[in-house]
Amino acid sequence: MNHENLTNISELGEFGLIDHLTRDIKLNQPSTVMGVGDDAAVLKTGGKKYTLVSTDLLIEGVHFDMVYTPLKHLGYKSAIVNFSDMAAMNGVPKQIVVGLGISSKYTLEALEEFYAGLKKACELYKVDFVGGDTTSSVHGLFISVTVIGEVEKDKIAYRKGAKPGDLLCVSGDLGGAYMGLLLLEREKTVFQANPQAQPELEGKDYILQRQLKPEARVDIVETLKKADVIPTSMIDISDGLASEALHLAKSSEVGVAIYEEKIPIDQLTFDTAREFKIVPSVAALNGGEDYELLFTVDQKDYDKIKVIPELRIIGYISDAAEGNRLVTPDNHIVELTAQGWDALKK
Amino acid sequence: MNHENLTNISELGEFGLIDHLTRDIKLNQPSTVMGVGDDAAVLKTGGKKYTLVSTDLLIEGVHFDMVYTPLKHLGYKSAIVNFSDMAAMNGVPKQIVVGLGISSKYTLEALEEFYAGLKKACELYKVDFVGGDTTSSVHGLFISVTVIGEVEKDKIAYRKGAKPGDLLCVSGDLGGAYMGLLLLEREKTVFQANPQAQPELEGKDYILQRQLKPEARVDIVETLKKADVIPTSMIDISDGLASEALHLAKSSEVGVAIYEEKIPIDQLTFDTAREFKIVPSVAALNGGEDYELLFTVDQKDYDKIKVIPELRIIGYISDAAEGNRLVTPDNHIVELTAQGWDALKK
Repeated sequence: MNHENLTNISELGEFGLIDHLTRDIKLNQPSTVMGVGDDAAVLKTGGKKYTLVSTDLLIEGVHFDMVYTPLKHLGYKSAIVNFSDMAAMNGVPKQIVVGLGISSKYTLEALEEFYAGLKKACELYKVDFVGGDTTSSVHGLFISVTVIGEVEKDKIAYRKGAKPGDLLCVSGDLGGAYMGLLLLEREKTVFQANPQAQPELEGKDYILQRQLKPEARVDIVETLKKADVIPTSMIDISDGLASEALHLAKSSEVGVAIYEEKIPIDQLTFDTAREFKIVPSVAALNGGEDYELLFTVDQKDYDKIKVIPELRIIGYISDAAEGNRLVTPDNHIVELTAQGWDALKK
Repeated sequence: MNHENLTNISELGEFGLIDHLTRDIKLNQPSTVMGVGDDAAVLKTGGKKYTLVSTDLLIEGVHFDMVYTPLKHLGYKSAIVNFSDMAAMNGVPKQIVVGLGISSKYTLEALEEFYAGLKKACELYKVDFVGGDTTSSVHGLFISVTVIGEVEKDKIAYRKGAKPGDLLCVSGDLGGAYMGLLLLEREKTVFQANPQAQPELEGKDYILQRQLKPEARVDIVETLKKADVIPTSMIDISDGLASEALHLAKSSEVGVAIYEEKIPIDQLTFDTAREFKIVPSVAALNGGEDYELLFTVDQKDYDKIKVIPELRIIGYISDAAEGNRLVTPDNHIVELTAQGWDALKK
């Protein structure tokens, strides 16, 4: 093998790598409805509903920093990021299995904290912890969570399905998790320079919680059901609004337009972004880990959506030929691009 | 927190740790039939069959050594060890999702090799690869595979269910994977001392394959079905015969007796064990990763079992009060104990 021709994986990035490795996957099981390429795989297991499966890895030093991540929160978040994948299919989580690779620096008491957080999330979201694998690792903590969920067959929402004219909607507010991360990173730097320094985190609860202990918007799935709205497409926002909007557009073979001034941003997120000299909407567009839902609905559902306080209409879907656009507050149109958080490309 | 009172996880070992962390897990979903404590979780998803879910981690430096593990074989084995968990429930694998954490030393071409092995296993076992998560890791390769399978409700075999008088059966032969590992470790040592040395692996294909590219006994599930035999209990042999027999006995609240001379051992395994000055039956009892099936059947099924060439009856089930016993070839009875391979206890 000629080593000079080998390809470094960082050249492809996470999405490029997955596309490349899974491009010739063949599906043979009649029970597989949808394989690689959405927030979850969709299986037909013989009942009235579809079964959903999704898996996520959290790796120490990549997805979390033990310097400022309480293990209980980490356990909670490990479950939540997977529950969010079920919500992204308009479904609900039902069971999880957890794989843990643990280096010798972790004590039983530390793992108990992790499990306490995991169990808390399961309790609140009514999910059963049904199995796992626990083993040692040479370096650090590796967490793998797989979630099983379900969705009514006629209510499932894929990344594909958005059509020109549809409204682009988002739940909650964006950018907060990223601001929480910047704050924690800043305090870590201060602490490393001067271990006597007191952390300046007062009044920052909301964005710290967005980063350390997020929630999954399974409640929005219920809200949409009650409002009798089925999204035409849906994704959860783990890598930033821009990145996810582009995923929806690409999967649906359409164009997307986002009005910058419509992006919901919490006041504390806004103020913290300014403090860090970041344009708040840039934090919302490119900061990851908000775990809100981004989805499209048919225009006929406008009246049903506009009365739901947790939801904002932030743009619309057009033909693919129109491209993906960001409309600035002064009505300039720029191309929507994603600098999103990509663990393989830093 | 008083650090002197913290518990090192190696004191508990893998099974102790899992027992400890999962002891107060509550199940709330009516769709959960069986949670933690068997080879797979069992879910009721509304169809005629049960849905099975199991997850396994493979971590570089713990479960495999990149010095002598071809990535294609590793991909194959990662799938197989999970398929084996489905067979252990008397079920069949249907879909897998794969999480990969990759350090920067891996190239795209290396990952393609890994995926080629994974896809090969999926193709041969008619399993669909339906999703995953790929991300970077700080150190080494971290593999998490979750498998979804199914089993007819009236044919499911748990670890519990064995009753006094049942026959203890095993598929294939045992100890080979461990002998393959010892051989590879020896060649690694030789190579490290003298990189010019040629590996002495000729004629050792069988045990090398048992270690590097094992198979899952899904065929035995089919064989038992055709023979109209439903095991009263079952487990797959990943940690050694002794360890798994004790699991069956504990879960079923019975005692187990194994006749040492009945344990099936391949000639090459036997010869290699002697070469390494290991008693061959000790290798079979305590060497891991054979991925054969260990199960119990009612005595009435004796005639059906004895004619199946891939199966051996190696012992029987007794009352718990009789303890767990190994009957030596000279008819001595010793207590059956497990030194099995426990990744958290080395």
